[in-house]
Amino acid sequence: MEKLGMRYQGKAKKLYETDDPDILWVEYTDQATAGNGAKKANIEGKARLNNRITTVIFSLLARRGIPSHFVRSISDTEQLNRRLDMFPLEIVMRNRAAGSFAQRYGVAEGTALKQPVLEFFYKSDPLDDPFINRDDILALGLATEQDLDIIAAKTREINGALTSIFRAINVELVDFKIEMGKTGSGIILLGDEITPDTCRLWAIGNNHDGQVTHLDKDIFRRDLGSIIPAYQTILDGLTELEERESQSNS
Amino acid sequence: MEKLGMRYQGKAKKLYETDDPDILWVEYTDQATAGNGAKKANIEGKARLNNRITTVIFSLLARRGIPSHFVRSISDTEQLNRRLDMFPLEIVMRNRAAGSFAQRYGVAEGTALKQPVLEFFYKSDPLDDPFINRDDILALGLATEQDLDIIAAKTREINGALTSIFRAINVELVDFKIEMGKTGSGIILLGDEITPDTCRLWAIGNNHDGQVTHLDKDIFRRDLGSIIPAYQTILDGLTELEERESQSNS
Ligand SMILES: Nc1ncnc2c1ncn2[C@@H]1O[C@H](COP(=O)(O)OP(=O)(O)O)[C@@H](O)[C@H]1O
Ligand SMILES: Nc1ncnc2c1ncn2[C@@H]1O[C@H](COP(=O)(O)OP(=O)(O)O)[C@@H](O)[C@H]1O
Ligand SMILES: [Mg+2]
Ligand SMILES: [Mg+2]
Repeated sequence: MEKLGMRYQGKAKKLYETDDPDILWVEYTDQATAGNGAKKANIEGKARLNNRITTVIFSLLARRGIPSHFVRSISDTEQLNRRLDMFPLEIVMRNRAAGSFAQRYGVAEGTALKQPVLEFFYKSDPLDDPFINRDDILALGLATEQDLDIIAAKTREINGALTSIFRAINVELVDFKIEMGKTGSGIILLGDEITPDTCRLWAIGNNHDGQVTHLDKDIFRRDLGSIIPAYQTILDGLTELEERESQSNS
Repeated sequence: MEKLGMRYQGKAKKLYETDDPDILWVEYTDQATAGNGAKKANIEGKARLNNRITTVIFSLLARRGIPSHFVRSISDTEQLNRRLDMFPLEIVMRNRAAGSFAQRYGVAEGTALKQPVLEFFYKSDPLDDPFINRDDILALGLATEQDLDIIAAKTREINGALTSIFRAINVELVDFKIEMGKTGSGIILLGDEITPDTCRLWAIGNNHDGQVTHLDKDIFRRDLGSIIPAYQTILDGLTELEERESQSNS
């Protein structure tokens, strides 16, 4: 596999073409952003942690029958991904009120929800990723009704799997953001990344005075210290889980 | 029917109790607001126009098989309404991109939509009426899935009827906001008002240089002059339509 020209530089990754038109060479960077890029920093070690965390998660999901764009690891900060025609949507699922949900509806962070909720945001930096509903997605032609049904079903399935994966390492999956796209043959596949940048992860049973122990990008967003030890904790837990699982299967 | 104590003073109407616990005495006021009350004015004649317009519209809808909370007229600015247990939702239906939709998604006002869209906003002055999706409504317990199915079906039906009513008086219904509530026996009914305060109404075939002729509250929101002549045009057109319809039916 040969790495060719850069195709896209995002806020957290760089995408390169390869000699296979169906494969992208993805390089994770140390850049951290919040508030759609309003806050920015370089955090040494983040590229490696996120590249490795998302790799383990994609492998744990695959083991559970949930495929993704992941093809193989290249280095500590690089991986090959199947190229997808991405939906311009951030697909958000929430198990508990937090972040923009808590703010938008005036409910306390941590409030239990009667059921998990699916939300879509229109991925557009100039528009600041606005909240969008199903009807609006259809009216703007961003996806079809059938696409949305498949996306919703897959996201609920991913939520179930991720929730139990994180619970196995003593972490609560409060919410997460994923992206999906279509392969050349029209299959909808999980793409992008699943990392503490894109999930809200709270330590279970490790909270002092009812205080949440954040193990995700909220540490950066809210200036709660360095993200590195938290991300490392997540990587260590997931790596151990993967080892346990591959031993019990061999 | 006796008018008793005031129960609620809103941005456009005052609600009074009556000696019948199922009936509210609603007084339309001359107050106009925009941006959730950020902009405010007293506009003489608005109370009368809106009270009469919504009365004619409720009657035109009833004739088409769509019931509402309207009971009867009291005066030029007052009417009796069946008391409902309101959903805290603004129910918005759009036939064309305009207003907050155009802004949120960066599309030009007037852009055609692939299909009419339904949107919900959580009616909350302190939260500034945030956009909300179906899942979030369910998770917050603001309505049930069955409620939302009924609300959606009724709103699409109302959109069809209103679109043809306005087209009959040479006006395009671009979008509108309605509210619904439940009767004591659990029936979901159209409540509140349908007026140029709550609809976007564009004159058909009467536009100079591709400029839209607004016949609604955008005249106030955007400082385009007095709303009174435009609201009067709507009232005159609807009154004539109603007369034509009652003649042809008698
Ligand atoms: N398999 C894939 N094929 C094509 N594009 C992808 C794939 N997975 C993710 N992407 C896109 O690559 C970019 C990832 O880079 P990132 O730094 O996260 O960008 P952004 O700042 O847009 O979030 C995103 O635009 C994402 O939609
Ligand atoms: N049939 C009804 N029964 C009870 N409340 C109603 C009914 N119709 C409308 N309402 C409520 O009455 C109020 C109408 O007054 P308005 O001045 O429009 O208030 P607001 O500033 O809240 O929009 C709204 O809160 C609306 O939800
Ligand atoms: Mg990204
Ligand atoms: Mg109102």
